[in-house]
Amino acid sequence: MRAALMYGAGDVRVENVADPVIKHPTDAVVRITAAAVCGSDLHLFNSLSPTAGPLRMGHEFVGVVEDTGSEVTTVKRGDLVVSPFAISDNTCEFCREGLQTSCTHPEANYWDFKPDEGAQAEAIRVTLADGSLVKLPVAADSALVPSLLTLSDVYCTGHRAAVLGGVDEHTRVTVIGDGAVGLMAVLSAKLLGAEQIILMGRHPDRTDLGREFGATDIVAARGAEGIEAVRELTGGQGTHTVIEAVGHLPAYEQAVGVVRAGGIISRIGVPQYEEAPIGMASLFMRNVCLTGGLAPVRAYIDELMPAILDGTIEPGKVFDTTTDVDGVPAGYRSMADRQSLKILVKP
Amino acid sequence: MRAALMYGAGDVRVENVADPVIKHPTDAVVRITAAAVCGSDLHLFNSLSPTAGPLRMGHEFVGVVEDTGSEVTTVKRGDLVVSPFAISDNTCEFCREGLQTSCTHPEANYWDFKPDEGAQAEAIRVTLADGSLVKLPVAADSALVPSLLTLSDVYCTGHRAAVLGGVDEHTRVTVIGDGAVGLMAVLSAKLLGAEQIILMGRHPDRTDLGREFGATDIVAARGAEGIEAVRELTGGQGTHTVIEAVGHLPAYEQAVGVVRAGGIISRIGVPQYEEAPIGMASLFMRNVCLTGGLAPVRAYIDELMPAILDGTIEPGKVFDTTTDVDGVPAGYRSMADRQSLKILVKP
Repeated sequence: MRAALMYGAGDVRVENVADPVIKHPTDAVVRITAAAVCGSDLHLFNSLSPTAGPLRMGHEFVGVVEDTGSEVTTVKRGDLVVSPFAISDNTCEFCREGLQTSCTHPEANYWDFKPDEGAQAEAIRVTLADGSLVKLPVAADSALVPSLLTLSDVYCTGHRAAVLGGVDEHTRVTVIGDGAVGLMAVLSAKLLGAEQIILMGRHPDRTDLGREFGATDIVAARGAEGIEAVRELTGGQGTHTVIEAVGHLPAYEQAVGVVRAGGIISRIGVPQYEEAPIGMASLFMRNVCLTGGLAPVRAYIDELMPAILDGTIEPGKVFDTTTDVDGVPAGYRSMADRQSLKILVKP
Repeated sequence: MRAALMYGAGDVRVENVADPVIKHPTDAVVRITAAAVCGSDLHLFNSLSPTAGPLRMGHEFVGVVEDTGSEVTTVKRGDLVVSPFAISDNTCEFCREGLQTSCTHPEANYWDFKPDEGAQAEAIRVTLADGSLVKLPVAADSALVPSLLTLSDVYCTGHRAAVLGGVDEHTRVTVIGDGAVGLMAVLSAKLLGAEQIILMGRHPDRTDLGREFGATDIVAARGAEGIEAVRELTGGQGTHTVIEAVGHLPAYEQAVGVVRAGGIISRIGVPQYEEAPIGMASLFMRNVCLTGGLAPVRAYIDELMPAILDGTIEPGKVFDTTTDVDGVPAGYRSMADRQSLKILVKP
């Protein structure tokens, strides 16, 4: 089958690889019908060392179950399923608390850390199929599939950021970053009733979609100028919640600059830094809380699916480009160049 | 009157200074009957540049109102009062939310930042007396005064750390630091019902008091060894809540090491660092939340006072040394040398 591999920064290739087969009784093999390129893939696309590659890429997919191991009971051949980006048994202590990203099962993993599997391909072997896969009650060719695909990562991730940020009808929110996750955070903040949603982004086509999802204000400026603009929009105080959906240090510093005293910075952009300011001047004196992390997407799929199925929301609007597996390398370049917002891969 | 001034690291002197007088209609002058030396004073005692001094010291006191400005209505001459370490009007937007440390009144301040006033003295001028001072329903010579004095900072601060840390009857807690604030955090976690309270501290007399306040386990080791010990006490997972009551970077790193995935690090030790690890490896991958900050003590005084008045708790046990104002310099040295846990100053 065809599959995308990243050999190093800027170097994604599509090659013929072996078809996946069942290896463990808890496995399923899924024929992929829709996958995506994620903003977090771009971090690797910008930084991967050639000695670390090649990596099989992709952690968001919808597909049809083709085969199952002997112990799999919740999905069967022919089911359309979606997978979260973390593989978990959904039964351990952490999974039961809704933190499937910290599943203690020895086979628990992230697609990104599995060198032999990736979703930017024609098929995939899913370990812990019972814990990870969720059946979708539509056909593989349903027009709802792009929106349901966002349950694999970006919509659930944006939703969690808004939940951890304490968003309710009394909350003013800043979302930093107009990528797919930032836009999903805007949509989620809107659904949670946020009073004001300021989207910080520089790409008019994206911020236009942000307005459609519920942003009340757009701030294109960055750094000190952007911080000043948000403060002007909030009576000088900043916002109760700041959702940081970029992952680079300047975005974090911007978050510190626009958060209201006593407020919450909720991070979903995968940090491309380890050290950052958290002392007296940045967080402590103003009692700012820093939350977020790798989202346990599996915990939110069932809760968020109905509004997609009944057409209330259409998070799949973040996909503005569709390609096949052979088009994945061009898709990476297009996203990296900010020509595409998010790539839908239809093998 | 006599007052303590810090001229630089290690250099505290007691001098004759002018008696305080009313300057603004919202002022009160308070004759101090009990004050304290704080662990955060010790940070300055270890680091103050001689060019930054001399500073009038002390931010925790109980005393008798001696005079009031024309606009003061909530306290009157002769009242015994306690003051939080932050001065606030208690009416602004932030004060109404319980974040008096971010009061927007132009006169809002911290005692530590007021070069002309300090509580390690015979008397003090209190700006925003109505917003800051709280009347105590006991006599100045009551045996309850040491415990009521802890409402000015350390008990309310420890309580807030436990509250922000989400402590309830299902929570396992680590408290890092056996100073007064750490011990108050132990007491607070116990009162909130914590299932397990691990106190990390190296001074047996202090950790003994910690056990009395509710600690279930003591870990004297620090660094990697201390982290390993806490993990062993918690089935390998670490604790849901970690209260960091030291303020030095190694204590923060220890907090990262002992916090359970999905858990909360609640900081009350005033950070003596600005940059620290918060990226993928430290917080993000395990969804650890970092909260805390300068505690808005005023928000908790009324709530926490009754259990002191009725004798249910005795937080004043953290005072193990009593001195007069002239003994304050020796008190600093004694606390810095870990000979004294906390100094009670009786002018």
